[in-house]
Amino acid sequence: MTERHRAPRAVVLFSGGLDSTTCLSQARADGYVCHALSFDYGQRHTAELSAAMAYTAARGWIVDHKCVRIDFDGMGGSALTDADIDVPETPSEGIPDTYVPARNTLFLSVALGWAEVLAADAIYIGVNAVDYSGYPDCRPEFISAFEQLAGVATKAAVQDGVRIQVRTPLMQLSKGEIIRRGTSLGVDYAETVSCYQADAEGRACGVCDACRLRRAGFEEAGVPDPTRYRN
Amino acid sequence: MTERHRAPRAVVLFSGGLDSTTCLSQARADGYVCHALSFDYGQRHTAELSAAMAYTAARGWIVDHKCVRIDFDGMGGSALTDADIDVPETPSEGIPDTYVPARNTLFLSVALGWAEVLAADAIYIGVNAVDYSGYPDCRPEFISAFEQLAGVATKAAVQDGVRIQVRTPLMQLSKGEIIRRGTSLGVDYAETVSCYQADAEGRACGVCDACRLRRAGFEEAGVPDPTRYRN
Repeated sequence: MTERHRAPRAVVLFSGGLDSTTCLSQARADGYVCHALSFDYGQRHTAELSAAMAYTAARGWIVDHKCVRIDFDGMGGSALTDADIDVPETPSEGIPDTYVPARNTLFLSVALGWAEVLAADAIYIGVNAVDYSGYPDCRPEFISAFEQLAGVATKAAVQDGVRIQVRTPLMQLSKGEIIRRGTSLGVDYAETVSCYQADAEGRACGVCDACRLRRAGFEEAGVPDPTRYRN
Repeated sequence: MTERHRAPRAVVLFSGGLDSTTCLSQARADGYVCHALSFDYGQRHTAELSAAMAYTAARGWIVDHKCVRIDFDGMGGSALTDADIDVPETPSEGIPDTYVPARNTLFLSVALGWAEVLAADAIYIGVNAVDYSGYPDCRPEFISAFEQLAGVATKAAVQDGVRIQVRTPLMQLSKGEIIRRGTSLGVDYAETVSCYQADAEGRACGVCDACRLRRAGFEEAGVPDPTRYRN
């Protein structure tokens, strides 16, 4: 079998949360060999990361799972990485304090580098423009700008004309639609963690932005919520 | 004094090498308060990073210096990070093995995040289109694409209309011109390390791509080469 006839490969950004776990199953359903990529960047919610590692360990079709550790040397700026900023427990106006500066730019940059090493065809990211909490780097114009950048950034692009697609299958879905999609693809949401301040056992607070969106999503989907809440 | 009248701030990508050290002095000369940013990403040449830390420690005008550690979890793909790939010691055709996949995309992403936290006005990066060894992410079209991305990627851009400039003062200079520029700005090149395989004391090999370009640059500039070679 020549390289030309190999199965397509994808790097899938995978946090262990509801959206990215759905995205991983969608990449598989789309025919890609899946390479999962997680980040340990000092986020409060390490339970999500533990859930991600356990999820892939139980599924042979995820052929590799890397966790890239980034130590920001105290840069701060977000409620998710800075212990001095509280996680908001009521809906906020504008872009909330849980926004991490340039996070998806950074995550996609690492994914792009790994995709080049793997000669992968696509990067999957579970961003969503509907329930996106106002994050600027979850919008179609951001993804489009990143694809433009990727087209001039790599040796593969410049020397060999390779174009890496950034696929966002959840972009236009409501949380309920994401849950219905994932359920039809066999995702077990009991194994996922979304809460920004889950405890060490992965039990959710039930009150942060992420918990509110997730709970409403199961109601919208008409699917029983398997989330373990600590209250 | 209101926030509006403060001195402009810049995040300067600073490796401790010849180009980025020149860039740092240029940012200062341009009137920016300088925040230096280095990366420890498993590169072979940690002597360059030690040089960077020592350089800022001796200069009070560099108001902060962060070193972000990134552990790529064995992704490989470059002679600079993968012990299984030799550093080339003869000029190579095309893009050389020292290319690190998506490196400047990643570095600029972190710089963008820090710039947002600092409310900085500019990012300085010492890329160069003349002696750039064929790296795709050192070209004007790459920088331009990154500025486009930055314009849609951050809370500062989307909510407050902030535009962060990516400044590349060395882009069109030859190595000799960079050295002349730096010398006029007071850079002490004896304190910089460029070699891809410098020893623990920062002494250069004299034969890698980086050493060859640097040595030729001092000849072109007509400036005595202060580099400490180990042979």
